[in-house]
Amino acid sequence: MKVDGRHYRSIWYDTSDASVKIIDQRWLPHDFRIATLKSQLDFATAITDMWVRGAPLIGATAAYGVAMAMRDDSSDSSLDSCWSALHSTRPTAINLRWALDRCRQVLESVPVAGRAAAALELAHEISDEDIERNRQIGLHGLELIRALAANKPAKEPVRILTHCNAGWLATVDFGTATSPMFHAADAGIELHIWVDETRPRNQGALTAWELDGHGIPHSYITDNAGGHLMQHGQVDMVLLGSDRTSAGGDVCNKIGTYLKALAAFDNNVPFYVALPSSTIDWTVQDGLSGIPIEERPASEVTHVQGLQDNGSIGKVQVSPAGCTVGNPAFDVTPRKLVSGLITERGVSEATPEALRAMFPDLQVE
Amino acid sequence: MKVDGRHYRSIWYDTSDASVKIIDQRWLPHDFRIATLKSQLDFATAITDMWVRGAPLIGATAAYGVAMAMRDDSSDSSLDSCWSALHSTRPTAINLRWALDRCRQVLESVPVAGRAAAALELAHEISDEDIERNRQIGLHGLELIRALAANKPAKEPVRILTHCNAGWLATVDFGTATSPMFHAADAGIELHIWVDETRPRNQGALTAWELDGHGIPHSYITDNAGGHLMQHGQVDMVLLGSDRTSAGGDVCNKIGTYLKALAAFDNNVPFYVALPSSTIDWTVQDGLSGIPIEERPASEVTHVQGLQDNGSIGKVQVSPAGCTVGNPAFDVTPRKLVSGLITERGVSEATPEALRAMFPDLQVE
Repeated sequence: MKVDGRHYRSIWYDTSDASVKIIDQRWLPHDFRIATLKSQLDFATAITDMWVRGAPLIGATAAYGVAMAMRDDSSDSSLDSCWSALHSTRPTAINLRWALDRCRQVLESVPVAGRAAAALELAHEISDEDIERNRQIGLHGLELIRALAANKPAKEPVRILTHCNAGWLATVDFGTATSPMFHAADAGIELHIWVDETRPRNQGALTAWELDGHGIPHSYITDNAGGHLMQHGQVDMVLLGSDRTSAGGDVCNKIGTYLKALAAFDNNVPFYVALPSSTIDWTVQDGLSGIPIEERPASEVTHVQGLQDNGSIGKVQVSPAGCTVGNPAFDVTPRKLVSGLITERGVSEATPEALRAMFPDLQVE
Repeated sequence: MKVDGRHYRSIWYDTSDASVKIIDQRWLPHDFRIATLKSQLDFATAITDMWVRGAPLIGATAAYGVAMAMRDDSSDSSLDSCWSALHSTRPTAINLRWALDRCRQVLESVPVAGRAAAALELAHEISDEDIERNRQIGLHGLELIRALAANKPAKEPVRILTHCNAGWLATVDFGTATSPMFHAADAGIELHIWVDETRPRNQGALTAWELDGHGIPHSYITDNAGGHLMQHGQVDMVLLGSDRTSAGGDVCNKIGTYLKALAAFDNNVPFYVALPSSTIDWTVQDGLSGIPIEERPASEVTHVQGLQDNGSIGKVQVSPAGCTVGNPAFDVTPRKLVSGLITERGVSEATPEALRAMFPDLQVE
């Protein structure tokens, strides 16, 4: 999407110096920096130290990492060591492993001399697939927004509340929850986005930055504010992403999503979740009992990072020294609170039957 | 309540140097400082610059301010100018005006020579009344906690979630929502308090500091976490304060309270509100339509204050530069979500009938 009026992907191959470029996300939203990755070690560092983040983007980054490693040494042993080195960067990231397995599987059957070119082609392909999937999500979500706009007086914006960053920075382009917003803005629909700051990691700041780059009006709000806004008719739709969706239609997403779903339900505000089908876990029916929730470090809650007066990025400690902290990273929104799931194949009801009918080829027995 | 094992009020008269002492709350929870107030200007500064905060404490501070002014000059004109000077510090604070009016009314009928002593006596009286009211709230709330404890296996704590700081720092002592917690701890009941950080002003840090001083186990959590904790049976009770309560039983409290009430209702967790009857607005029946909600400055959301690495207190900017912000400071929780109102006269149902029956002497026609 756009930054300062120019289109960017979050990762791309630069033919001018035969390197891979990424947006170094550690400095956002305060500073827009592009980093150059060439060696396998560069890629490992970029993933480990979270210069890139978001499952689809991590997968694409790993694929480009394999391509650069193959250019340096396309032997079988190099392929193996590259798989291991990149996989160990974030071993629990399912999409990282998926991308690495796919690369190894394809490249094993390619002669050593052709592997560098094949690997680069595959990295492009994985990136393009992600973009196309997100574009489809955007087009399906656009129709929902168009329907809301049709029921509003002219010039009055459709007001959408979102939580966390399911934006283009977490993917190669478009994002998931943001894709319908970008498509609606491009279609000339007036929008106003309520952006939850999303404690503890404040990823809402990234969403606000993305929307600003695309010229979409928005307000940055605390996570506490959404219920009040819905009570007063200020929200037409909630639209956010999913980290993992149960086969039954329950949505595991960033902590606090469930509270927004309750408020939407209580105020008759439609609550939609945008997700690629790859986030559906066909082995889990009931999300609340079946999806384990990660407890993350206390320091995410006790300390807040931002731009200091001196222009550098630093942290302040908010809570009392030595304070005990609880920090569950995700919660599960039961399907009963979900108006619909926006996937690359269309909008599905959040029920096991509807998901099965839309993805007969994907589910497991 | 206790700080480092010693008992403090948030404001007290120090006979050793005939001055008033306060806890200077600007440095909490990072630094515990006591400030000395002598002149009328000292008091005006302490209220304006929020060295003290919370309606009951502001009222008591104003009363002590009048007493010190009367000691310097007990003339009628001094009484008038003192009323004006202190009232202008925070003109919308209803409790400030109430305390100043009461002081003026009493002192006008006292001979000039006796005013200094009478004013000091009155300030003590206003402070003691606040403490007694909060003590009664604590005793009534204690019985609710005792009933929960009776249904738990031995040694398993009663887990209470609270939002914002309705603690002793906002009153002269005990606090409102915290008073039942302090009384329960003193009665030997095992507790664990979930403390919402309460964005944007992070008053949860003050609550955590208070609980730590009294030795009550607690966890500091993001405002997003409470719904998840309730879904997983980790909360036995929600207990928080009220800034304004409608005659119908609706509760206007710190932004985000409504979201916790929805989650409590969805998970059958009792939701109690502790409040002195002085917060009941008998002129408003329906809180949602009748109570205007203050929109506060954007900088509260965009910037976060805390302890810096260098040991001083500073701010970091979290959101993108120039970001538009929405910052409603309160929300209204409809009575249907409230299990009960803990007042100084007992626990009332959140209905107009029950409130009228408990306070027949207070309501207006």
